[in-house]
Amino acid sequence: MKHDLAIRGGTLATATETYRADIGIRAGRIVTIAEAVTDADDVIDATNRIVMPGGIEAHCHIAQESGMGVMTSDDYLSGSMSAAFGGNSCFVPFAAQNKGESLANTIQRYDGRAAPKSVLDWSYHLILTDPTPDVLAELPEVFAKGVTSFKVFMTYATRVSDAQFLDILSVAGKHGGLTMVHAENHDMLDWMGRRMVDGGNVAPRYHAPSRPGLAEGEAINRAISLARLAQAPLFIVHVSTPVGAKLVAEARANGGQVWAETCPQYLSLTREDLDKPGMEGAKFICSPPLRDTATQAALWQHVQGGSLSLVSSDHAPYRYDETGKFHAGKDVNFRQIANGMPGIEMRLPLLFSEGVTKGRISLNQFVALSSTNAARIYGMLPRKGTLSIGADADIAIWDPNQTRIAGEMHDNMDYNPFAGIEVTGWPVTVLGRGRRIVEGRELMAKPGDGLFVKRATVDLTGQPGHPVPELDPAQNFGANLS
Amino acid sequence: MKHDLAIRGGTLATATETYRADIGIRAGRIVTIAEAVTDADDVIDATNRIVMPGGIEAHCHIAQESGMGVMTSDDYLSGSMSAAFGGNSCFVPFAAQNKGESLANTIQRYDGRAAPKSVLDWSYHLILTDPTPDVLAELPEVFAKGVTSFKVFMTYATRVSDAQFLDILSVAGKHGGLTMVHAENHDMLDWMGRRMVDGGNVAPRYHAPSRPGLAEGEAINRAISLARLAQAPLFIVHVSTPVGAKLVAEARANGGQVWAETCPQYLSLTREDLDKPGMEGAKFICSPPLRDTATQAALWQHVQGGSLSLVSSDHAPYRYDETGKFHAGKDVNFRQIANGMPGIEMRLPLLFSEGVTKGRISLNQFVALSSTNAARIYGMLPRKGTLSIGADADIAIWDPNQTRIAGEMHDNMDYNPFAGIEVTGWPVTVLGRGRRIVEGRELMAKPGDGLFVKRATVDLTGQPGHPVPELDPAQNFGANLS
Amino acid sequence: MKHDLAIRGGTLATATETYRADIGIRAGRIVTIAEAVTDADDVIDATNRIVMPGGIEAHCHIAQESGMGVMTSDDYLSGSMSAAFGGNSCFVPFAAQNKGESLANTIQRYDGRAAPKSVLDWSYHLILTDPTPDVLAELPEVFAKGVTSFKVFMTYATRVSDAQFLDILSVAGKHGGLTMVHAENHDMLDWMGRRMVDGGNVAPRYHAPSRPGLAEGEAINRAISLARLAQAPLFIVHVSTPVGAKLVAEARANGGQVWAETCPQYLSLTREDLDKPGMEGAKFICSPPLRDTATQAALWQHVQGGSLSLVSSDHAPYRYDETGKFHAGKDVNFRQIANGMPGIEMRLPLLFSEGVTKGRISLNQFVALSSTNAARIYGMLPRKGTLSIGADADIAIWDPNQTRIAGEMHDNMDYNPFAGIEVTGWPVTVLGRGRRIVEGRELMAKPGDGLFVKRATVDLTGQPGHPVPELDPAQNFGANLS
Amino acid sequence: MKHDLAIRGGTLATATETYRADIGIRAGRIVTIAEAVTDADDVIDATNRIVMPGGIEAHCHIAQESGMGVMTSDDYLSGSMSAAFGGNSCFVPFAAQNKGESLANTIQRYDGRAAPKSVLDWSYHLILTDPTPDVLAELPEVFAKGVTSFKVFMTYATRVSDAQFLDILSVAGKHGGLTMVHAENHDMLDWMGRRMVDGGNVAPRYHAPSRPGLAEGEAINRAISLARLAQAPLFIVHVSTPVGAKLVAEARANGGQVWAETCPQYLSLTREDLDKPGMEGAKFICSPPLRDTATQAALWQHVQGGSLSLVSSDHAPYRYDETGKFHAGKDVNFRQIANGMPGIEMRLPLLFSEGVTKGRISLNQFVALSSTNAARIYGMLPRKGTLSIGADADIAIWDPNQTRIAGEMHDNMDYNPFAGIEVTGWPVTVLGRGRRIVEGRELMAKPGDGLFVKRATVDLTGQPGHPVPELDPAQNFGANLS
Repeated sequence: MKHDLAIRGGTLATATETYRADIGIRAGRIVTIAEAVTDADDVIDATNRIVMPGGIEAHCHIAQESGMGVMTSDDYLSGSMSAAFGGNSCFVPFAAQNKGESLANTIQRYDGRAAPKSVLDWSYHLILTDPTPDVLAELPEVFAKGVTSFKVFMTYATRVSDAQFLDILSVAGKHGGLTMVHAENHDMLDWMGRRMVDGGNVAPRYHAPSRPGLAEGEAINRAISLARLAQAPLFIVHVSTPVGAKLVAEARANGGQVWAETCPQYLSLTREDLDKPGMEGAKFICSPPLRDTATQAALWQHVQGGSLSLVSSDHAPYRYDETGKFHAGKDVNFRQIANGMPGIEMRLPLLFSEGVTKGRISLNQFVALSSTNAARIYGMLPRKGTLSIGADADIAIWDPNQTRIAGEMHDNMDYNPFAGIEVTGWPVTVLGRGRRIVEGRELMAKPGDGLFVKRATVDLTGQPGHPVPELDPAQNFGANLS
Repeated sequence: MKHDLAIRGGTLATATETYRADIGIRAGRIVTIAEAVTDADDVIDATNRIVMPGGIEAHCHIAQESGMGVMTSDDYLSGSMSAAFGGNSCFVPFAAQNKGESLANTIQRYDGRAAPKSVLDWSYHLILTDPTPDVLAELPEVFAKGVTSFKVFMTYATRVSDAQFLDILSVAGKHGGLTMVHAENHDMLDWMGRRMVDGGNVAPRYHAPSRPGLAEGEAINRAISLARLAQAPLFIVHVSTPVGAKLVAEARANGGQVWAETCPQYLSLTREDLDKPGMEGAKFICSPPLRDTATQAALWQHVQGGSLSLVSSDHAPYRYDETGKFHAGKDVNFRQIANGMPGIEMRLPLLFSEGVTKGRISLNQFVALSSTNAARIYGMLPRKGTLSIGADADIAIWDPNQTRIAGEMHDNMDYNPFAGIEVTGWPVTVLGRGRRIVEGRELMAKPGDGLFVKRATVDLTGQPGHPVPELDPAQNFGANLS
Repeated sequence: MKHDLAIRGGTLATATETYRADIGIRAGRIVTIAEAVTDADDVIDATNRIVMPGGIEAHCHIAQESGMGVMTSDDYLSGSMSAAFGGNSCFVPFAAQNKGESLANTIQRYDGRAAPKSVLDWSYHLILTDPTPDVLAELPEVFAKGVTSFKVFMTYATRVSDAQFLDILSVAGKHGGLTMVHAENHDMLDWMGRRMVDGGNVAPRYHAPSRPGLAEGEAINRAISLARLAQAPLFIVHVSTPVGAKLVAEARANGGQVWAETCPQYLSLTREDLDKPGMEGAKFICSPPLRDTATQAALWQHVQGGSLSLVSSDHAPYRYDETGKFHAGKDVNFRQIANGMPGIEMRLPLLFSEGVTKGRISLNQFVALSSTNAARIYGMLPRKGTLSIGADADIAIWDPNQTRIAGEMHDNMDYNPFAGIEVTGWPVTVLGRGRRIVEGRELMAKPGDGLFVKRATVDLTGQPGHPVPELDPAQNFGANLS
Repeated sequence: MKHDLAIRGGTLATATETYRADIGIRAGRIVTIAEAVTDADDVIDATNRIVMPGGIEAHCHIAQESGMGVMTSDDYLSGSMSAAFGGNSCFVPFAAQNKGESLANTIQRYDGRAAPKSVLDWSYHLILTDPTPDVLAELPEVFAKGVTSFKVFMTYATRVSDAQFLDILSVAGKHGGLTMVHAENHDMLDWMGRRMVDGGNVAPRYHAPSRPGLAEGEAINRAISLARLAQAPLFIVHVSTPVGAKLVAEARANGGQVWAETCPQYLSLTREDLDKPGMEGAKFICSPPLRDTATQAALWQHVQGGSLSLVSSDHAPYRYDETGKFHAGKDVNFRQIANGMPGIEMRLPLLFSEGVTKGRISLNQFVALSSTNAARIYGMLPRKGTLSIGADADIAIWDPNQTRIAGEMHDNMDYNPFAGIEVTGWPVTVLGRGRRIVEGRELMAKPGDGLFVKRATVDLTGQPGHPVPELDPAQNFGANLS
């Protein structure tokens, strides 16, 4: 068979296994995996390289206004470019509904931002901020269009009530949508935040105690309880505490469809970074906040043991200036500083280096955590996230031995919170549908090369998901849980 | 020493031990406990009787409008009388704040209901329905007056938000007040309730599935999290699930000041009682609802093992007619039926019979669960709830061998949900401050004989309670809980 | 490229994904996976079929004397043949050390049984019955030969003490061996067993209460504690209780390398099967015993949620006659009846039918549970258990729609405990290294066609397994576990 | 009534409450508690003092050879004297069976040691070292004589197997005996100990890692499982880990009759004390070993929350010389050093000072933990451990404000591990059956003044203990525990 492109000589790594093979690509798809693929117009030599499914960044904020109204510094060009240089060939930013806006309109608005600029294939997670009955009624159509996941907040101005959450979960569960949730107890955060500020504790370092782990544990427990009642699948974003990870694992062992992710910052940084002098700590303000080293170690164990299914960046690029972190001025308390840090380009190298290179996780776990699990959970398997026949040729070619000190990235940011960390293992070539997006230090793709990815609904007959029975009105939900 | 009254020949039982002694009473107080008390104007022969601290009913609704606006059938006369016939010599009904009302006024209103009528000493738990800043500011005064506990709801129209709950807990914790909470997740209940009714499942039996155990477990976990953050003591009323009892026990083992009670209905009845034909099931509608037999068995174990500190009646007397259960008419769905059942007179005999007589708990546990623990938790020790010098001579004299089939009670109700149960062990004489309130089947006390009991604040240096440190703004609350 | 064999038109299912592709095989290995494989000497049409990695049966007793000295009815011919008809293309029976025997000798003895007869590729788990220092010293050589896993017992005459267990784990952990354990507390079983028999409770049905779930939970907790101290990986065989599954999941979430399996009998049968009249219940005597339906449901959830990594048959074929079950006679108590039941041919169809067909697990979970996870945990990836380039062409072609009532199998047994169950989904063709072993109802392979599989040690730098640090003598193992 | 002695003006504290009263004593018993006791031959002025039940030391080694054959430095004179100066009026040392010895003989031997010398009332816990069928058959007689508790070991040469443990528990449970257990996994300790020594890690500080918390957690879980199967009550001695305390609390919440104690050393010292220079660390070698500060904090919470019922000294007085710690010489490894430390005189002052004075526990919890709970659990209520009519006048009069630095004690030891700690709250007068044992710094009692205390069996109808049903052979013990 004739191929457009062959990747030869590499070691293939999937979520399952590592083996020697060549890959043959035609019309953007993998059409052959074989001992030797010879008949190709173009060849990439992957000798001494690892050939993996390109990363799928499943949690990032691109061309999106924050809850505080601050626009991210990255648009779909700089954001997708930075992601590509970090080994990703697909990403799923958020499309945030405005109050009063139809979801169709939200998607259309974001299409206008993404389509002309993205060098990566993309999809959206919607952010539901206004779950009116009309909006809930619109959800099945949105799922049918391929936007099959959406996020709600349990904190911020955009938070949903438990009642709204139940209605949302119920609709989503019935129609195969996956509800994602930012789980922190709003009132606990607000109460602590006000206490801190009222007590004159306004420096960035007070961000951490203002958002206690208790607030995350409480909210995760509540979200799982609501999902169990509504019989809907649930995904907990950016888990930062062992108690949260444990609740997720227990829910699954008790028959629930509950998954979760953590982020590199919770595995690599600590709240001591918030103690940096002056306003420097502002660079490390994200939510949930950075925790302590014992928490970090325990989270690694949950990553190793499978409690957590993804490591996502939560790339939220607000510059260290008045357009970003200090949109409300420089002389502010920590509550007025934009929450979030960049990391879309660091996610895979950091996870590889701290995980695979340091022997904490296997290479195959790396693939699962960075790509395949995202594809499965978010309905892109087997098109994305895998090296298999028929799949998009979304491929990252990796040099496991390259060592660099993290420094400036390709995003539109003015700082890198991970700067200075020695990282071993970097991508050298990244393909999207068989095209080179990045080769070495060169961007090969052009703005608009990326395509929208239509995603499947949650597979109710398999993993993730199983048949959602009708609610039995006579069932005694949880009466005798012990 | 000269005594007004001696109780002679009895076996004394306290929360700690059982022994033979006489009791000498003067001016309403126990002044002598001795092998023999001879010098007394009046003598009660307690040979073959158990002499115990009179019961303290710590959860009952008397002369109180329900959230649905239905007045209880019992006022302070019938209520206190029925309690006395059930072995109680003190009770603590609720005083429910009206919206917009000052707490001083609430207490005054209830004083008008209680003082002229009660045959028992009484105190109030306030019910906070309108926790404005002014009302919170009033709390310390209320505690100083001796009303040191109050209830909030996490469900019903009177529910508090988590933010309000935190403010309330914080004030209460600082000033030695004990926050009690009805812990069920409102939105879960409302969502399920509407689903049931919308699906045409309107019979009383659907009350149980409409209030799943999940909703109780979620709310108890949340309440404990909030109390932990606010560093305040907490009491969970009417726990009906093992998961709830377990959360309470774990909180205490982790250093929290959290206590809880269950009720005789959760130990003796099941949701199958709701299945009775016609509207008969309405008699068994209470909240949380009756559960199943496995739940019941597990709750007994938590009572035995000490997870639960009290067994209270939650006497909520709404008659099986248009003045009570069917205030909204006979042709209604279960959500329109008044929640609650009577039981103030059955509590102690049932707990004695099912507990002590059947060998599930010791006699001393009975005393602790029915009287002493209430006195300790609610700030009445050592004046009430104990047989010790200086204590009010509030005494129940018990015939452990008397067997009766439960039937009509002395309350103002038209049914007894426990009717037909064979009960062994009944009170024969009940004293309040040394006066006979009940003797045999006679009421000896007169309306208004009872006095208001001024209760102590939670002892912050001991049990329950320990010093409440100032919040450390740099503390990492719960970040690494595992 | 020229192929010996092509499988065309099928739907491939792996542990990760499901997709359309052809497979090209040469010299027994998969060399091409492609949209179309045209150039082949031989073709299998797999239209409307699922093409999966052949099952790997990782727990079976073949040509092995039981602890009671009873030889299994299946030798490597009937055993491997029955396995093949059940969709397996590889199996790992036990090679049981005799007392005083060197491990080299044990392997040699079993080679004599397996090599001439097996139609499947095979490896062994050793059974250590005599872990003398010499035997432990031999372990690294055995691992180097490719026999990298072995089982110990916590019950039966062959049980190891905790001290022996620690020494074994320590050697195994250091040299990359995986310790498997039958975890039931021997003394609890013996004590209960004697009590049953002494009380005249001798019928087969008393087998279940004689081996309480408590004994399994205790032993699993102990085994995990020992493995944690010795810093060694551990595999728990045939978990039959939720408490056991939960301990395994928790161990992994706490950083332990602990995996486990359950068996179809615990997912499909219950202790009520032991109640059959006469001695019929003897057919259902296995250890651990069958449990109740609530246990079954909870185990399914642990399978779905990933607590349990494999479903293995524990095929232990003792005929329902004097050569097997009744080796000690017909007039015996339950303790004298041989433990075990057949199931090597039923495992995959049952798991497919009860799992995939009924929507409890996904097709990909089925592959993971029946093949890929065994290959990974037991060191055969990527040679076995996967459809990838370079892998042995061990392939099962499945008809997902074929329905049959389970009846007689191809093993050498006189009963099938699963007889009568309707099963949808059966293998139609099974390949081993590219050769047809089974086609339709025909056996195509000849005795001795199978080859020994040399397995890798546990990958200490990846999954499963991570670097085993030297024991730090100053470390406070578990002092403050909470 | 005429009294031999009155205690006037004091504040009485019991396990339940604190109140003002006088106590009248006649013939060694409390016969009157009253506002004022005037008619007495002798008077103690207790103004500004706390009057409490005398301490009951329930875990101490007196005139007993250790497992290593070393005789304690304290006999019944010095031991009881030291205990008395520490506020105790009763103690329960161990009577250790010799191999081959009948229990009657053991008791007789110890009677010879105790009766002529003890200044305190005493009883024994037997230590079963040779649980032959004859010895088990003797147990009911021993219980009938009033020796109703006994200890077994899960480690040391005297350890019992699980099988023996079950037989013992079963006999004890049926006849009302309470089985106490030293719960550490012997093989884990031995394995780690040998590793330490083989690695040249012989200094006292290696004692701590040689006995990891894992070994305690494992053994406690096992002991509880065995007791649950045998349906017998159980007492875990000297719990030193939160995981152990948690298992005890959970067992009780699940219906088990399981209690436990911890010791002052686990609440006040840490493993860092073992790091002292030279062999100084030997003074802090006890078993289980001292743990870290996080463990300590968690244990305090379990004491506060009620998981642990007693704080006992585990007084094991081996001098810091060749008669004790260094019986095997000075140039030894840590495994050859006698395990144990003194503390019988420090227990109550330390618990008072660290507990009550520092606000961690209430005064009433102090009484419960130091006296009343021991009396209840060990069958001495209401004769000992309480201030009630008919009780022995065993009374400690306490000065809550006296502050001393802990230094030399009245025992026969050459060091005090708690030396240097500032302690506020000391006993000033201690009575035994109405006689002054200690007054100020004077010993008033004479050797032999103490009497043997006949103890009740575990109350099978109450607390602790409930009816022990016959084992139901068809019951599925724990099959579906989750």
